[in-house]
Amino acid sequence: MMQTELANALVEAGRFFFSRGWVPATSSNFSARLDDERALLTVSGRHKGRLSSDDFLRVSIESGFSLEVGRRPSAETLLHTQLYAREPAIGCVLHTHSMPATVLSRLTEGALALEGYELAKAFPGVSTHESTLTIPVFANDQDIPRLAAEVDAWINRHGMPVGYLIEGHGLYTWGATVDDTVRHVEALEFMLECELWLRRVG
Amino acid sequence: MMQTELANALVEAGRFFFSRGWVPATSSNFSARLDDERALLTVSGRHKGRLSSDDFLRVSIESGFSLEVGRRPSAETLLHTQLYAREPAIGCVLHTHSMPATVLSRLTEGALALEGYELAKAFPGVSTHESTLTIPVFANDQDIPRLAAEVDAWINRHGMPVGYLIEGHGLYTWGATVDDTVRHVEALEFMLECELWLRRVG
Amino acid sequence: MMQTELANALVEAGRFFFSRGWVPATSSNFSARLDDERALLTVSGRHKGRLSSDDFLRVSIESGFSLEVGRRPSAETLLHTQLYAREPAIGCVLHTHSMPATVLSRLTEGALALEGYELAKAFPGVSTHESTLTIPVFANDQDIPRLAAEVDAWINRHGMPVGYLIEGHGLYTWGATVDDTVRHVEALEFMLECELWLRRVG
Amino acid sequence: MMQTELANALVEAGRFFFSRGWVPATSSNFSARLDDERALLTVSGRHKGRLSSDDFLRVSIESGFSLEVGRRPSAETLLHTQLYAREPAIGCVLHTHSMPATVLSRLTEGALALEGYELAKAFPGVSTHESTLTIPVFANDQDIPRLAAEVDAWINRHGMPVGYLIEGHGLYTWGATVDDTVRHVEALEFMLECELWLRRVG
Repeated sequence: MMQTELANALVEAGRFFFSRGWVPATSSNFSARLDDERALLTVSGRHKGRLSSDDFLRVSIESGFSLEVGRRPSAETLLHTQLYAREPAIGCVLHTHSMPATVLSRLTEGALALEGYELAKAFPGVSTHESTLTIPVFANDQDIPRLAAEVDAWINRHGMPVGYLIEGHGLYTWGATVDDTVRHVEALEFMLECELWLRRVG
Repeated sequence: MMQTELANALVEAGRFFFSRGWVPATSSNFSARLDDERALLTVSGRHKGRLSSDDFLRVSIESGFSLEVGRRPSAETLLHTQLYAREPAIGCVLHTHSMPATVLSRLTEGALALEGYELAKAFPGVSTHESTLTIPVFANDQDIPRLAAEVDAWINRHGMPVGYLIEGHGLYTWGATVDDTVRHVEALEFMLECELWLRRVG
Repeated sequence: MMQTELANALVEAGRFFFSRGWVPATSSNFSARLDDERALLTVSGRHKGRLSSDDFLRVSIESGFSLEVGRRPSAETLLHTQLYAREPAIGCVLHTHSMPATVLSRLTEGALALEGYELAKAFPGVSTHESTLTIPVFANDQDIPRLAAEVDAWINRHGMPVGYLIEGHGLYTWGATVDDTVRHVEALEFMLECELWLRRVG
Repeated sequence: MMQTELANALVEAGRFFFSRGWVPATSSNFSARLDDERALLTVSGRHKGRLSSDDFLRVSIESGFSLEVGRRPSAETLLHTQLYAREPAIGCVLHTHSMPATVLSRLTEGALALEGYELAKAFPGVSTHESTLTIPVFANDQDIPRLAAEVDAWINRHGMPVGYLIEGHGLYTWGATVDDTVRHVEALEFMLECELWLRRVG
């Protein structure tokens, strides 16, 4: 896909997420892989429901640094680029900031186990509701390199999850394409909302 | 109705369900009867809020097989065709995947009894809120023929319900026309949401 | 206001209520006063989010009967006309069918007292949040004349409320104009949703 | 910014808040600073989701009085002008009236402490989720000068909060620009909704 197509797909994703209330107050950030070296990432502090082609910049997958003079990427760039660097099959990373992700991340120690959901099959390689999706929850940290190291350490120990939560902060998930990753956001947000209700009603 | 009209009505239904969050992550599937032998069914894995005429194919009501070379129907085709085969008055079958259907199906053993709802009158033959709607809940099963046999056995024993739930998976309901069936989805989703709140607040 | 203007205002109200999920599955019905003798009422069974000028008919305020040959008004016409007959200042009656109204009506004996809400001031004659709005809850009844008699008896005893609930069935409210009555629906739906949460969290 | 630009920004804010259900039944009011002496404020009782340029008037920041003959500002004008008068950096004040703000304000004594939220960083000068946002809750009062004095006394004692709640009445927040203040409303509404769920599920 060309850069403009990828940007348009991310703009569209932002519109959808905004309509659901998953990207409040300029939170969240989106990215897509351009090639082996570069990714396209949302510029810091933009309204995610009204993104324009001007709200993206190119960053280095290796360093996480901006490749455009005088333009600052999101503070959390490293959380995107570490995934592109470690897994060539990843073409998109989406960070959303919904109420269920925020609340559950504060109520869960270590990892959230999603079990018994048909929608688990939204993820590649999952063929039955009997699979368990393990979603690690990391303590929030304003020191992003340190937080990225935590994420790397967890993946080294447990293997690649389908997504993870940051406490009081939201959800990260990824996929081969923007469309796949939007589907993963939908599936995880759905299961997180179910978990909230199961904890209350169950 | 002609095939194009039926497809358009299902496209419209998908748009509405998507706006309500009832068809997340390409879940759910929709069908309508074409004649005694054939039904129109959504192709597997499409976005149910953005269906086009290309996202449907014709299947055999008797076998559940695709009547179009090289196109795969949804995995759950048999759950649609068994209803058309057993009941000539059924013209549409809609499967949705909402949070309330998913959560309640996991909290209910055997069957859910919906009682005291004026909206029960949305179903043909129901003339008073004093009727009880019995919604069976089946264990989820990736073996669709086996699951279809469970559904058949239940109907043989108890008669035709207005709809049923699959655990962690969602709702099936049906009607004479697409419009009637959309109304049945709305009525059941409404009563399921009420049940969730009644269990919590009541 | 002319009949077409009143019908347009009710069509618009239906679109808004549908967007909020307050008129599911062709439930609910709307009316507006034409003059001392006649009111305009929604035809039975129409989709309240997609009303057209054809979905209304004129009924007699005195008898509740249709004034148009061969067209049937909603089963609940009498619940509208009794209000026009008893109170000349009433120009519009709206019946909605939301989840909070349905759930709270099933959990409340006799009457619901709404206290401490600034939004109580949405109703004429209410100038402070310290007022209590008493919302009677009537048992649901398919015998509408009998239910209408219950409503009349309550009003004779307690005076005119700002609205009432029917158990498992929904909300009735009214006002001088369609705009005023839409505002009353919004205010009551808001307070009912607050009450649900107060009962759960409080 | 010119008056028309400010009015347009407030009209747009109202549309967004209405889509979220945060300004029911003509509740809420919005304002923006024109200069050192004057602010633009919504006229009393207008539908906040359908504001037009005609729904605003100019008021004196010093007195809170209307500067337009025969046009009445909102009853709560003083709660806006006191903020412009005390803090030159404030360019916009938004009052919303959501369910979570209404319910939490009734369940909280004194002040609500928002802790552990990444979204706290939506406010100027907040650089970490470890900060605590203290949101005072004032008893509702139809005597606005008396209520404004309460607000002033609290700020004198504790310093400027990022916003405050009035019991059973809603949220006030402010910022340098309309865009900033809309972001503050989004961030506070998000955290209030999280708090409701944390109290229920946690």
